[in-house]
Amino acid sequence: MASIRPINDKIVIKRLEADNTTKGGIVLPDSAKEKPKEGRVLAVGAGRVLDNGERAAFQVKKDDRVIFSSYAGTEIKLDGEEYLILEENDILAIVT
Amino acid sequence: MASIRPINDKIVIKRLEADNTTKGGIVLPDSAKEKPKEGRVLAVGAGRVLDNGERAAFQVKKDDRVIFSSYAGTEIKLDGEEYLILEENDILAIVT
Amino acid sequence: MASIRPINDKIVIKRLEADNTTKGGIVLPDSAKEKPKEGRVLAVGAGRVLDNGERAAFQVKKDDRVIFSSYAGTEIKLDGEEYLILEENDILAIVT
Amino acid sequence: MASIRPINDKIVIKRLEADNTTKGGIVLPDSAKEKPKEGRVLAVGAGRVLDNGERAAFQVKKDDRVIFSSYAGTEIKLDGEEYLILEENDILAIVT
Amino acid sequence: MASIRPINDKIVIKRLEADNTTKGGIVLPDSAKEKPKEGRVLAVGAGRVLDNGERAAFQVKKDDRVIFSSYAGTEIKLDGEEYLILEENDILAIVT
Amino acid sequence: MASIRPINDKIVIKRLEADNTTKGGIVLPDSAKEKPKEGRVLAVGAGRVLDNGERAAFQVKKDDRVIFSSYAGTEIKLDGEEYLILEENDILAIVT
Amino acid sequence: MASIRPINDKIVIKRLEADNTTKGGIVLPDSAKEKPKEGRVLAVGAGRVLDNGERAAFQVKKDDRVIFSSYAGTEIKLDGEEYLILEENDILAIVT
Repeated sequence: MASIRPINDKIVIKRLEADNTTKGGIVLPDSAKEKPKEGRVLAVGAGRVLDNGERAAFQVKKDDRVIFSSYAGTEIKLDGEEYLILEENDILAIVT
Repeated sequence: MASIRPINDKIVIKRLEADNTTKGGIVLPDSAKEKPKEGRVLAVGAGRVLDNGERAAFQVKKDDRVIFSSYAGTEIKLDGEEYLILEENDILAIVT
Repeated sequence: MASIRPINDKIVIKRLEADNTTKGGIVLPDSAKEKPKEGRVLAVGAGRVLDNGERAAFQVKKDDRVIFSSYAGTEIKLDGEEYLILEENDILAIVT
Repeated sequence: MASIRPINDKIVIKRLEADNTTKGGIVLPDSAKEKPKEGRVLAVGAGRVLDNGERAAFQVKKDDRVIFSSYAGTEIKLDGEEYLILEENDILAIVT
Repeated sequence: MASIRPINDKIVIKRLEADNTTKGGIVLPDSAKEKPKEGRVLAVGAGRVLDNGERAAFQVKKDDRVIFSSYAGTEIKLDGEEYLILEENDILAIVT
Repeated sequence: MASIRPINDKIVIKRLEADNTTKGGIVLPDSAKEKPKEGRVLAVGAGRVLDNGERAAFQVKKDDRVIFSSYAGTEIKLDGEEYLILEENDILAIVT
Repeated sequence: MASIRPINDKIVIKRLEADNTTKGGIVLPDSAKEKPKEGRVLAVGAGRVLDNGERAAFQVKKDDRVIFSSYAGTEIKLDGEEYLILEENDILAIVT
């Protein structure tokens, strides 16, 4: 099976299904679910090239659970699976 | 319970309810309240990467009460709580 | 009472009432007053972060009477008082 | 026969036909095929000139199978064959 | 009387009345005058802050007669007199 | 006869007629010809000035046969001949 | 008589009348003349300030006959004569 290696400041994300429980644990019906903006990092690139020729270090790493701007990035499909390719600037935070 | 760790120049904010008392202490009814533009800093990132490869230091820190541009940032919801993720440039001032 | 500490290149301004006397000292009625574009500097930030990691020095300081671009900045209200938060680039000149 | 040598940060791509099998191996009819966003790298330029006068290294190299932003780049035709000329920033990931 | 001290790359200009004589010395009626695009420099700021932290030197100085882009800058009024505040980039040339 | 010397990152191009044979050598009628996007480099400038004060080296040189973005550049006419003046960034590749 | 000294990267140009002879020397009537895009350099500024504080050297000099982008620059009139003030980036080539 093929795997995807993002370049420079690109990051490959697998969207997470929105959690259908509220804080208090009540299960919501499907229609009340929010559009998911969370994902799991599958792979990160080598980093953006700075003006001094070096690459910026990433703050996110493989397996991080991240929150990203909705509508950011490009949807791709490989071997029937859907992925999202973002730039690090589209990542807002890491959920731990 | 999950916690949120913002990256780079991102900042996680919890909006403060607009104070419903005027300078002189008179309590205003709900309909006269202004849209709140204040919040409490919950977490700050590691700082924006500069062209020399270092990271810019933040001026705001955890627990600061801050004023920010209205409509700036991205609203997120985690464990049923609403947060706002801003960039430091959206923060105008610290209230002390 | 709360006080406001602007960050980075932000500046807190208190608008000055437009002077309702002309050069020759004639008092104009209220309807002839111009929109005020002057203010008093209440506080300045620590300065914009340059690409070399240092902060640019401000040319304006607390108590300066300044002229600024009309419509620039964000209006805020704290303890019932109105303030304007500008960036230094919105300041045109200091009146001495 | 003529060959093409891209300059600076340009990359010459030969589009790959979209794979008409799904993950499970079922062959889809032609009308169900997706617009291909994959290609094979034929040649890369010498790299973008940085502000320090050096050239940024490429992460993709000849023969890499790459995923790129749809609609990016310029279509050219040489000796009856169609090619796509992209910039490295249009490349999202390498498929390995 | 108040005086104006521009900051950074700002310049205070007093517009010059358009000269109502042609090259050959013929006086034109008022309606044929062109919109004046010339002025006298009253004061210059300390210069724009460069990325290395220093300030760019100005090429114009107090009392220079300058040509500037029409519609550039901000009109201000102080003590009943009108002035124009420009940035150095709006100045095209010095007339000597 | 006058000659043209481009400055900085400018390049003077003489458009090439589109080749009216297909890969297999069949001659197409005039109406089926594509808009030519190829040209011959007549002259290159001294190079774009970088932030360190030096000039970026060109990758194209006199007599190169190049492919460029359609609609890029400025058409000029000198001594009755038509030329195209491009910037190096408009050049996609060199055909060898 | 007044003379014009351009600042920074500005250049003062005197438009040249379009040459009303074709390559072969045939004189065209006035209505067939092209809009002139050529001029003679009267004066150049001191050069654009680079990020290292130095000024970029000009490639054009006084008396050069130059080709420039049509519609670029600002038309001025001094002592009844019309001039064009351009930036060096508007100059495409020098005709020699």
